[in-house]
Amino acid sequence: MDAQSESRLKQLQHTYATYKQENLKLDMSRGKPSPEQLDLSNAMLDYPSSKDAMVTESGVDIRNYGGLDGLPEMKKLFADLLSVTTDEVIVGGNSSLTLMHDTIARALLHGVRGSNAPWGQQKVKFICPTPGYDRHFSICEHFGIEMIPVDMTDDGPDMAAVESLVAEDETIKGIWCVPKYSNPTGSVFSDEVIERLAKMETKAPDFRILWDNAYIVHYLTDRPATFNNIFTACEANGHSDRIFAFVSTSKISFAGAGIAALAASKENIDAIKKHLAMQTIGPDKINQVRHLHFFKDAEGVVQHMQKHADILKPKFDKVFEVFEEQLGGKDLATWSAPDGGYFISVDTLNDCAKEVVRLAKEAGVVLTNAGATFPYGKDPLDRNIRIAPSFPTVEELDKAMRVFCTCVELVSLQKQ
Amino acid sequence: MDAQSESRLKQLQHTYATYKQENLKLDMSRGKPSPEQLDLSNAMLDYPSSKDAMVTESGVDIRNYGGLDGLPEMKKLFADLLSVTTDEVIVGGNSSLTLMHDTIARALLHGVRGSNAPWGQQKVKFICPTPGYDRHFSICEHFGIEMIPVDMTDDGPDMAAVESLVAEDETIKGIWCVPKYSNPTGSVFSDEVIERLAKMETKAPDFRILWDNAYIVHYLTDRPATFNNIFTACEANGHSDRIFAFVSTSKISFAGAGIAALAASKENIDAIKKHLAMQTIGPDKINQVRHLHFFKDAEGVVQHMQKHADILKPKFDKVFEVFEEQLGGKDLATWSAPDGGYFISVDTLNDCAKEVVRLAKEAGVVLTNAGATFPYGKDPLDRNIRIAPSFPTVEELDKAMRVFCTCVELVSLQKQ
Repeated sequence: MDAQSESRLKQLQHTYATYKQENLKLDMSRGKPSPEQLDLSNAMLDYPSSKDAMVTESGVDIRNYGGLDGLPEMKKLFADLLSVTTDEVIVGGNSSLTLMHDTIARALLHGVRGSNAPWGQQKVKFICPTPGYDRHFSICEHFGIEMIPVDMTDDGPDMAAVESLVAEDETIKGIWCVPKYSNPTGSVFSDEVIERLAKMETKAPDFRILWDNAYIVHYLTDRPATFNNIFTACEANGHSDRIFAFVSTSKISFAGAGIAALAASKENIDAIKKHLAMQTIGPDKINQVRHLHFFKDAEGVVQHMQKHADILKPKFDKVFEVFEEQLGGKDLATWSAPDGGYFISVDTLNDCAKEVVRLAKEAGVVLTNAGATFPYGKDPLDRNIRIAPSFPTVEELDKAMRVFCTCVELVSLQKQ
Repeated sequence: MDAQSESRLKQLQHTYATYKQENLKLDMSRGKPSPEQLDLSNAMLDYPSSKDAMVTESGVDIRNYGGLDGLPEMKKLFADLLSVTTDEVIVGGNSSLTLMHDTIARALLHGVRGSNAPWGQQKVKFICPTPGYDRHFSICEHFGIEMIPVDMTDDGPDMAAVESLVAEDETIKGIWCVPKYSNPTGSVFSDEVIERLAKMETKAPDFRILWDNAYIVHYLTDRPATFNNIFTACEANGHSDRIFAFVSTSKISFAGAGIAALAASKENIDAIKKHLAMQTIGPDKINQVRHLHFFKDAEGVVQHMQKHADILKPKFDKVFEVFEEQLGGKDLATWSAPDGGYFISVDTLNDCAKEVVRLAKEAGVVLTNAGATFPYGKDPLDRNIRIAPSFPTVEELDKAMRVFCTCVELVSLQKQ
């Protein structure tokens, strides 16, 4: 280490020590909406009150049993949001994670349309674009589904790799996709990627794309990303059963009390409903009415998201500002600049991420575990870190990101 | 047929024809609460409003993610209701059916504590006391679990039969129980039955009692049935992992928007939570707060049930009144006289139930399908019919039960 580096190292160690003395307590580990964002939907709680009608226009008592796949009005809202028809939608409870988990569980126990046998009786592998969403990977690991990582690019997964894998290996039954403002890179799938996903030939007759459209309307600019309809593309290519799509209002209304939905071909939906009838009489209809009254329709949801963007944009900008100021031109890290979603993906120098996260935590800044964005929690290059700017205030973010950048530079210097 | 019978038959045929002309439309197929019962909880919808605190006393933002096993306050309410500790409870979503289904699905995919292998990799059988609840049987059939019927008595299942089965067959992994005001017979398990269930030795090391306490506080008299604590009994006999108990507020607050809970040994609960963390971030906390504010505590729930009883009791009484008047002393049917729950169980003469249900339906009175109370929908004696008096008004019930009794007598005479 040259004298200049040594001097810089001492300076960083001093700065880090100062931060530590501040006893910070900032949790940026998950993509949680902030209280201000949740406040945007508080008015939803005022309807229905005890004075309002308990029976819908179509004659359904919203308090009683029934409605396996959701109120017709709620199905319509999700169908419009997802650009599908109402018979291609099932409304769920408060969690799209549950819909995803249960979709895999059903496939393991019963198979899906086109399966020769339940997945649980076969070797099953899933393609996992990386970096990706840790909860997708946890589900696979939990169920013993082998994960095959492929690189995530700015346009979506490395399709040459995906196409070659699915063409040759019949145990590959699926791929996880977060097509818009992907977790954590913020990538938006290109129309070419969508077309290739729809068109590709798979050795498995029952291959499925788990299309987690978690950030479907979660844009940060006034130019929302759009892309071709994967359902139409799949149908045009004779693969209409290929898509299981998921969406929820968790980051639109309330994170713990929103409404999730699943979309798929009518044939898939009909098959799923037969299983679902064993599991539930139906999801909470009062909460559906609450959402319908507040948002009115899909357009109302889109408009509401502008208010979220107004709160989130300054937070993302703050992160970029500190990164630029602290790390710009130093060749120590690269970061994504998403137009939507909930995350910023940082790549440090190789073999630095774990140590950065550890140091930041010691200084009171809890980040998502290094490695979490890869299958089995193992980032082969130990360089990817997911930044979740939504929950802290702009002031807290400023501090947290300064701590983070100090850790990045400190670890990079020490590793040299 | 003697002249007297022939004359009576003609009379009944005339009465039946008259009913048919009335174009009745009465659906008594499911145990649904009536609108008046649902009205009892409407005030619950007024809290929280947008003006109320969104953070609990323990510092939880009820709108955000988190709380895998429920708010501590909600766990306490269910723990008190079920006479267990809070670390023996998981709060779920709006459906105990989902908790039951998912419990079996988890056992199939992963096994339970004490399993040598996932249940899905073995032959699995369940004991099903009959007549019983059709949705329990549907879950078994759906998952390929072989059902072994044993007789339901006034005190619970025929324990001699149960004990002998579980002692000899290691593929018998479970038994369904509705211990209080059983569906459909209204039986309450005796303390002796509870003790024998807790004590019996099972060949399967991972045997489970699925204790569906659906009618735990659903009494029709001012002398609620009580019985010994099955958890304590199991623990005293060294079988603390044996119980998976289920309960919900579906027939306490709102049938479609209530709250369900699962209770089991702490060790079972800890094991289940590991799986649950893959499936959800947590159930709807706003709805938990709604329930907590309305009921306050378990005692509040019990008191609320008196209001349900006040509405339900006259309906049950009306059924008994018409039965006594129309069928009394004729030796054509016997019926249960439950002190709680949602059903009256009728046994016609052998080989009559299907035809009675068919005739009633033709006259506009839809009953639960004959056979539904038995595994695979097959009542070997074709005699059991479940009457669900909760939803219709007393006037509608009077009419519906007269139609029913006419059908019973008509079919009995024709079969003679």
